[in-house]
Amino acid sequence: MYRFNNDYSLTAHPAVLKAISEISGNAYGGYGLDEICGEAAELIKKRIGAPDADVHFLVGGTQTNYTVISASLLPYQSVLCAESGHINVHETGAVEHIGRKITALPHTNGKITAAQVAEAGENFRISDVQEHITEPGMVYISFPTEYGTVYTLQELEALRKACDEYGLVLFIDGARLGYGLAAEGNDVTIRDIARLADVFYIGGTKCGALFGEAVVIRNKRIGHRFRSHIKQNGGMLAKGFLLGVQFRALFTDDLYFTITEQAVAKAMTIKKAFRDKGIKSYIDSPTNQQFVLLTEAQAEEFAKEFVFENEGRTGQDMRISRFCTCWGTTEEEVAALTEAIRRLKK
Amino acid sequence: MYRFNNDYSLTAHPAVLKAISEISGNAYGGYGLDEICGEAAELIKKRIGAPDADVHFLVGGTQTNYTVISASLLPYQSVLCAESGHINVHETGAVEHIGRKITALPHTNGKITAAQVAEAGENFRISDVQEHITEPGMVYISFPTEYGTVYTLQELEALRKACDEYGLVLFIDGARLGYGLAAEGNDVTIRDIARLADVFYIGGTKCGALFGEAVVIRNKRIGHRFRSHIKQNGGMLAKGFLLGVQFRALFTDDLYFTITEQAVAKAMTIKKAFRDKGIKSYIDSPTNQQFVLLTEAQAEEFAKEFVFENEGRTGQDMRISRFCTCWGTTEEEVAALTEAIRRLKK
Amino acid sequence: MYRFNNDYSLTAHPAVLKAISEISGNAYGGYGLDEICGEAAELIKKRIGAPDADVHFLVGGTQTNYTVISASLLPYQSVLCAESGHINVHETGAVEHIGRKITALPHTNGKITAAQVAEAGENFRISDVQEHITEPGMVYISFPTEYGTVYTLQELEALRKACDEYGLVLFIDGARLGYGLAAEGNDVTIRDIARLADVFYIGGTKCGALFGEAVVIRNKRIGHRFRSHIKQNGGMLAKGFLLGVQFRALFTDDLYFTITEQAVAKAMTIKKAFRDKGIKSYIDSPTNQQFVLLTEAQAEEFAKEFVFENEGRTGQDMRISRFCTCWGTTEEEVAALTEAIRRLKK
Amino acid sequence: MYRFNNDYSLTAHPAVLKAISEISGNAYGGYGLDEICGEAAELIKKRIGAPDADVHFLVGGTQTNYTVISASLLPYQSVLCAESGHINVHETGAVEHIGRKITALPHTNGKITAAQVAEAGENFRISDVQEHITEPGMVYISFPTEYGTVYTLQELEALRKACDEYGLVLFIDGARLGYGLAAEGNDVTIRDIARLADVFYIGGTKCGALFGEAVVIRNKRIGHRFRSHIKQNGGMLAKGFLLGVQFRALFTDDLYFTITEQAVAKAMTIKKAFRDKGIKSYIDSPTNQQFVLLTEAQAEEFAKEFVFENEGRTGQDMRISRFCTCWGTTEEEVAALTEAIRRLKK
Repeated sequence: MYRFNNDYSLTAHPAVLKAISEISGNAYGGYGLDEICGEAAELIKKRIGAPDADVHFLVGGTQTNYTVISASLLPYQSVLCAESGHINVHETGAVEHIGRKITALPHTNGKITAAQVAEAGENFRISDVQEHITEPGMVYISFPTEYGTVYTLQELEALRKACDEYGLVLFIDGARLGYGLAAEGNDVTIRDIARLADVFYIGGTKCGALFGEAVVIRNKRIGHRFRSHIKQNGGMLAKGFLLGVQFRALFTDDLYFTITEQAVAKAMTIKKAFRDKGIKSYIDSPTNQQFVLLTEAQAEEFAKEFVFENEGRTGQDMRISRFCTCWGTTEEEVAALTEAIRRLKK
Repeated sequence: MYRFNNDYSLTAHPAVLKAISEISGNAYGGYGLDEICGEAAELIKKRIGAPDADVHFLVGGTQTNYTVISASLLPYQSVLCAESGHINVHETGAVEHIGRKITALPHTNGKITAAQVAEAGENFRISDVQEHITEPGMVYISFPTEYGTVYTLQELEALRKACDEYGLVLFIDGARLGYGLAAEGNDVTIRDIARLADVFYIGGTKCGALFGEAVVIRNKRIGHRFRSHIKQNGGMLAKGFLLGVQFRALFTDDLYFTITEQAVAKAMTIKKAFRDKGIKSYIDSPTNQQFVLLTEAQAEEFAKEFVFENEGRTGQDMRISRFCTCWGTTEEEVAALTEAIRRLKK
Repeated sequence: MYRFNNDYSLTAHPAVLKAISEISGNAYGGYGLDEICGEAAELIKKRIGAPDADVHFLVGGTQTNYTVISASLLPYQSVLCAESGHINVHETGAVEHIGRKITALPHTNGKITAAQVAEAGENFRISDVQEHITEPGMVYISFPTEYGTVYTLQELEALRKACDEYGLVLFIDGARLGYGLAAEGNDVTIRDIARLADVFYIGGTKCGALFGEAVVIRNKRIGHRFRSHIKQNGGMLAKGFLLGVQFRALFTDDLYFTITEQAVAKAMTIKKAFRDKGIKSYIDSPTNQQFVLLTEAQAEEFAKEFVFENEGRTGQDMRISRFCTCWGTTEEEVAALTEAIRRLKK
Repeated sequence: MYRFNNDYSLTAHPAVLKAISEISGNAYGGYGLDEICGEAAELIKKRIGAPDADVHFLVGGTQTNYTVISASLLPYQSVLCAESGHINVHETGAVEHIGRKITALPHTNGKITAAQVAEAGENFRISDVQEHITEPGMVYISFPTEYGTVYTLQELEALRKACDEYGLVLFIDGARLGYGLAAEGNDVTIRDIARLADVFYIGGTKCGALFGEAVVIRNKRIGHRFRSHIKQNGGMLAKGFLLGVQFRALFTDDLYFTITEQAVAKAMTIKKAFRDKGIKSYIDSPTNQQFVLLTEAQAEEFAKEFVFENEGRTGQDMRISRFCTCWGTTEEEVAALTEAIRRLKK
């Protein structure tokens, strides 16, 4: 079976495994206060052009999301996000569990707009009953989104402007950041992300690491005693050096960017194969996740050889199927898939 | 100035004030464990046809809502409600503050349907990733809704059935219950409410009392140590007998029902006056809240003599204006308003 | 039966009831934004010598406690209080329910010291693992304490100094404030309280009102959007004017102070009667709560005529019995009790 | 420098690293639903003699503690633990952050007794004001404790009995379980732990793994939708197979037990060296953590060659110093330390 079901089914990139293996036998300080974490943070700050940023390493995405939100919002504030936002639909209410409200906004292909943010901000500003409603305090977006789409630089700049206008924090979930930056047609750099967000993270789990998310904080208020928030929210790894050593490897010689770029190139090959066959996309994604519409028969045919994800059905009874590449996807796997697409019966 | 802005601007019905005055000088047990609360509970249980119900008295609506939700749901469960639901938009995130998620559903005139509930329940049931999403654990509706509309008996029966099918608790917010039961065309009785809901409350604050909401619990699981939940959520009044004495008065000789019925009759007179004048409703409400569309000039004209609420604007730049009657609205006030409507310039 | 079991078993002082009765028929704005609340706040600010204070009216004590704490502390901060503190032992974990930790300190007769606060502050300051422990962010004390004792001015000044030194907020629970200020030997004025606390409240429920606690905020940070916190925590009464009208009455002609002073005088008469009889106090209380040690036989004898509270036993098998006066305790009741004490068999 | 400062400063036991390395290139299902986790769970269930247990793998201790507590307690319930309990003093208020109260009990060398539990249970049972206080719902102990001591089998049996008598859940934090089971004089087996606890965990982070804690649930109520609690509390690792593969290695050929036993033997050698030198223990610990009392000069002398932890001072101005062995401590390190002890000036 060839696996295209997700981007977290393999251990880690060989360079990451080698880096962990190389420090075996050495002893390091606990809880992320070690020299390797320091070096990894320096590499990241240099690469993103933000020497004054705070960088912290956490284990996973859900944990990172609610920790950042807990550190950023006051009790009466809420976070605006797309209805399809990960925090709204796939984290078992973790944000609400620690006391904060999510206000879900309608989305287009996983994206929300500056106009929506401004409208929410303005509604609060002009409200006669401000104490009866939550104050929008944060905008949460993902780059790329849960549908694999990316914001344009213009869209991000506009979101930033709306956040400034209404006093909101901009938080960018970068669980798949590498794949987003490598997206076909993308005009956003990691330096733009670091310039525009108050806080964001560079996803490791899905981009070459065993696990780990590097949180970058640009807004000093959020950074205040952030380590206390990490600990309180269960995100402080005793052996923090395991996170540092992985990110040090990923940010050496731009490995993080190279391997995610390769994964996106493979996804584009697959996308083209589907398109050439006349199989429609559910959403036009320029990143490593491809959502296509298959008939029942086609899906069953693929299922004999490939593992992929079923994401529900459309009204016309087509299956929405996700095929996902990652840093570890091989040329052979792609060839097998494109070949299968070509010989598919309509 | 004549006040039609809300139904909580007066102290209390004279019979309620008299009842409080009559017990002055008497000493009672604290925290609702007194004989008057007991008598009030008995009167309520008899009137709603539920001798085995648990009745508790809380002070206000927001408090009651999140206390009931806290007592009903496990951490990974969420409450389904209309996007316009009071808990979703007018309680400053109180439900999330104590850790529970609200899943807001699109509504029609403030109402949600059994089909929507079944869809949410089914989506969870068939999900491959149940641990990543919240489990719908409760349906919250208001009777009447925030738009003054009411559910039909058939709609409530269908909601009950959907709740049974998918294991959800049905919670009915009756902050304005009296006005809903007295609605024009309503076919639901308080006995129906008591039969169909797992838990509901009989609003006192807006229906003749100084303050107070009588929670009626039919589902024994929710009732378990409910007093602990009340105390923990700040809803236990030291002088609980003040709540008991008010509800005893309101449930003596059906006072609660009589005075809300009169208020709705007055609202219907006002509704007819608007309609006769050709002024459109924003929503066709059969209860004490009337939402009409006024031009800027009309609204200003009314504002000289009447206090009413501005609820925003429509796309066509009409003002959505709320005129509200209550148990204390006088014939004179209604006459002044209907007269003003009649002489209004178009 | 004569009731000495608590100070919340009667409705309200006649002047308060009259004040409520007098506004019947008038309509007021909702949620505390009415002119009466404004007047009451002005009277309070004048009386406490703090023209720039923020005054808010809430319904009950538990609610007030956790609302103030929610508004004051960040997630990783904790509140220091006596092990016997009301928030620690009699509020069903309400503070923890909204996410904050209480660090309980050993007490002497219900009181904690500046030295204990300084020690906790210093322990955090010098800690190598600050992110693993909560930061003391608030000191909570009650005046009078749960044992009826009061802090001296010197003790309060010292607590203030320790709070300043270590950056803590000082919160004084004044559920029985009137009785504390009237305590035998007390050298603290309400102006001192207002000068030394960051936030405190003037208890109404136990001091002449039907219900209600007047929160006075001196620290602007706590005051920021405090109404949002009130609403979120279920403490915003729709008919807020009911709170205003009661406190306006209580702060007219110093009624609040006069009636609590009378209650304490009566308690001192009772205290003397017990002492003259040779019955020992469990704690030497100068306020309206008297804790005495009775034999089983004595307690049973009293129980025939009087209602009082059983607060447990001592090691020597004596019953700790609480006799409580209030603003409504009559001369006749006191005479009956002192007479019974005198004729008690040893 | 030789490191004796903690038991989490090295990566992982070679067998664990090898196991991870061996699965590189293989793809596995996500979120712990893979065959390796299944195999690891089977090995654990067999070893502990509990074929019907539920086994889940989480990343770290704090996270595990509050996840288990969130899954076990209702909002009005509290957890009893020693004042020195990890959840009470070293987790930044994580338990309170998700809404539950900790009631801290005085301890002896880190341990609490069945009598204390029974007292707390009895106090609640006989209380007249149950709704004003939290109900003890859980006992949390650590094995070994934060001071390195262990409960005897008799003590554990008594705690179990008290929990049964008063309806409490017994939760055993086994972050260092291996070291506890290998303690000098210990008479408790892992089968006893599994028989007596409702829920416990087998710590991996400090006992040979890179990270990871294996939660074993014996009480089906706690196990209900436990995966939802894991996800909600940020403890679900995307690549769960990384946890499974480590515990499979640790529970193959009793590796977990062998390596922790060796670590304790080394600690006993160090303990003896201190004792032979006449240096006193702060606490008589039979496990891998040794707490000794050093003079300032002695501590400085050691600090030249060894890293160890300063845990404060005693009243006599002696330093409490912790020397910790682990699975990775070498004979050479032990020899260097015992030699240094021998030549120490008094």
